[in-house]
Amino acid sequence: MRFVSFAENNQAGLGVETEDGRVFGLNANDSGYPGDLLTLIQNGPDALTDAARILRNGREIDMRRARWLPPLAQPGKIICVGLNYVDHTSESGFQQPDYPTLFARFSTSLIGHMDAMIRPRVSHQLDYEGEIAAVIGRGGRHIPKDSALDHVAGYSIFNDGSVRDYQTKAPQWTVGKNFDGTGAFGPAFVTADALPPGCRGLRLQTRLNGAVMQDASADDMVFDVATLIAIISEAITLVPGDVIVTGTPAGIGLARKPPLFMKPGDICEIEVEGLGTLRNHIADEEPAGTAAQETRIPAMN
Amino acid sequence: MRFVSFAENNQAGLGVETEDGRVFGLNANDSGYPGDLLTLIQNGPDALTDAARILRNGREIDMRRARWLPPLAQPGKIICVGLNYVDHTSESGFQQPDYPTLFARFSTSLIGHMDAMIRPRVSHQLDYEGEIAAVIGRGGRHIPKDSALDHVAGYSIFNDGSVRDYQTKAPQWTVGKNFDGTGAFGPAFVTADALPPGCRGLRLQTRLNGAVMQDASADDMVFDVATLIAIISEAITLVPGDVIVTGTPAGIGLARKPPLFMKPGDICEIEVEGLGTLRNHIADEEPAGTAAQETRIPAMN
Repeated sequence: MRFVSFAENNQAGLGVETEDGRVFGLNANDSGYPGDLLTLIQNGPDALTDAARILRNGREIDMRRARWLPPLAQPGKIICVGLNYVDHTSESGFQQPDYPTLFARFSTSLIGHMDAMIRPRVSHQLDYEGEIAAVIGRGGRHIPKDSALDHVAGYSIFNDGSVRDYQTKAPQWTVGKNFDGTGAFGPAFVTADALPPGCRGLRLQTRLNGAVMQDASADDMVFDVATLIAIISEAITLVPGDVIVTGTPAGIGLARKPPLFMKPGDICEIEVEGLGTLRNHIADEEPAGTAAQETRIPAMN
Repeated sequence: MRFVSFAENNQAGLGVETEDGRVFGLNANDSGYPGDLLTLIQNGPDALTDAARILRNGREIDMRRARWLPPLAQPGKIICVGLNYVDHTSESGFQQPDYPTLFARFSTSLIGHMDAMIRPRVSHQLDYEGEIAAVIGRGGRHIPKDSALDHVAGYSIFNDGSVRDYQTKAPQWTVGKNFDGTGAFGPAFVTADALPPGCRGLRLQTRLNGAVMQDASADDMVFDVATLIAIISEAITLVPGDVIVTGTPAGIGLARKPPLFMKPGDICEIEVEGLGTLRNHIADEEPAGTAAQETRIPAMN
C-alpha cells in the first residue's frame, strides 16, 4: 500500500496511490476520514489496511493542484544516521565509526514532495543527501536484530538537505541539518510488505538538474535497517511513527572538486526503486522583512 | 507563577505551587481542567494567567503521593546547548567554539522531579549536568536579540544526564544524550515574569549525595538566553513549547580525577535560585527479561 499525505485548501488529507499513479482519498473534513498517517500507524497494521480500503473509495485527488505533505508531519523522533556508507564516510574525511553516527532533525525542517527546498539567507552552501527513511510501526526497547524488521511499518525517501558551513560551525552538526525547509520527505509512505525486507537491494539515485550525483544500493549501508533498530533501541525506546533516516551514499556536493551547492531554480530528485521519486526545486528564503515571522502554533498538525 | 505537572493514579494533572510550597490543581478528569501546560503556552500568556486562577481554586494535591511529571512531557523540540560555559569547555578538552554547539534530546528520555534517573544496562558511565531550561512562549524565525526574551514563557531546571562512553562512540553525541530515563526536567515551570530577565545572575548548584559538584552563575554562559534564541532562530523556526537547555558549567563527573559516575542509590540535586531544586535518585535499568519492552503509544501524553 502507498499512502500520500496531502493538503487541499490548507486542509490536510490522506490518500492511497494506485498502480497507475492516481491518488484517491479524503480530507479531514470529509465524512469517513480515517485519521492521519501517524494515528493510523499508532493504531497498528489493521488500521492501515482498513484505512486504505476506505480511502480507495474516496474522491480522486488531483495531485497537480493539491500540495504534497511529508507522510508524517510531526513524527515523535526523526533519528538521522550519518556516515552509513563507506564511500561517503571517506569522501567526508572521517574514519568509519564502528557505531552508528546519530543526529536529530526537528519536524520544523520538513517539507513534502514538490515543495521548494529553501536556501537560507545566511548561507549559500545548501547540499543534497538522498536517503531511505524507515518508519517505526511497533515500538520497543532492546529490540533484537532478528525481529527488528517486524517493527517497521514502511518506508519513504528523504533528502537530508544540509547547510554545510553551519554543519561545522561547532562540534555538533545539528544546526546545519535543521534549517527550515531543508528536510524533504516523501512522496509517499510505502508499507513494508510491498518492499524487500529492510529495502535490501534497492537502488538509490540522486539527480541534480537531471545529472546523476549519487547512485548506490541499500546493500551498501554499513548498518542496515535491522541493525540500526537493534542498536538504537539499546538506548532509546522507539515508538510508532518514529522515523530513522538511514544515511546517504557517496556523491554529495561538498566533496566535489570544486564543491557544488544547490541554487535557486535547481531541481533535485531522489529516486529509490519501489519507493518512487522525491522531487524538489530550490528557492531562496524570502529576504528580511517580507515574511510573517511569527508562529503561535505549528503550521499544520 | 509556578506550574507543576503531575500524575495521580496515572491521570495527568496540572497545579500551581503557592509561596509556602503547597500545590493546588486539577487533573484531566476534573471539571474545569484548563488543559496541559503545552496547550496553555500555545494559547498565550493570558491562558496561563487564567489557568493559574482556576487551579489555585482546585484541590490541594499531595505531592508526596502524586508523581511529578516533566513540566512539558512532549515538547516539539528539546534543543540542548553544549560547551556554553568556558570552564566546562576547557574541562571537556574542547576549544571554545564561537557558535553554539547544539544537539537534540528526544522526549522519550524525559523524567520528572523525584523520578529515578536510570543507569542503563549497557554502560556504567552515567554523569550529571545541571542546567537551566528556557521554554519558548512566542514562536518566530529571525528573532532579534533585543526582543528575544519576550519570546520566553518561563524557565525550569534540567539534568542533562549523559552516558559518557556512548556520547563518544561516534562523532555525534546524540545517543549518549538520549538514553531513556536520563533527562530530568522540573520540578516546576516558573513564568519569566517571576525571574530576572534571561535568569541573569541566578546561581546554579549541582549536588551529588549532598556534595557540591557544580556551582556557577547563569552570567557565566558564553551565549546567554537572548543570544541563543537569536542565533538558533536564524536557522530554525521556534514554536511555543520548544525547550532550550542552556548548557552546564564545570564540574562534571567525567572530568574529575578519577572520573566519578553516578550509581544506584545516589541522589542528584540541581538547585537554581528562584527555580527550586530538581532531585532524582539513581537506579539501574531493569535486567533483561523483566520489563514490558514494547510500547504502542507514548506512556503519557
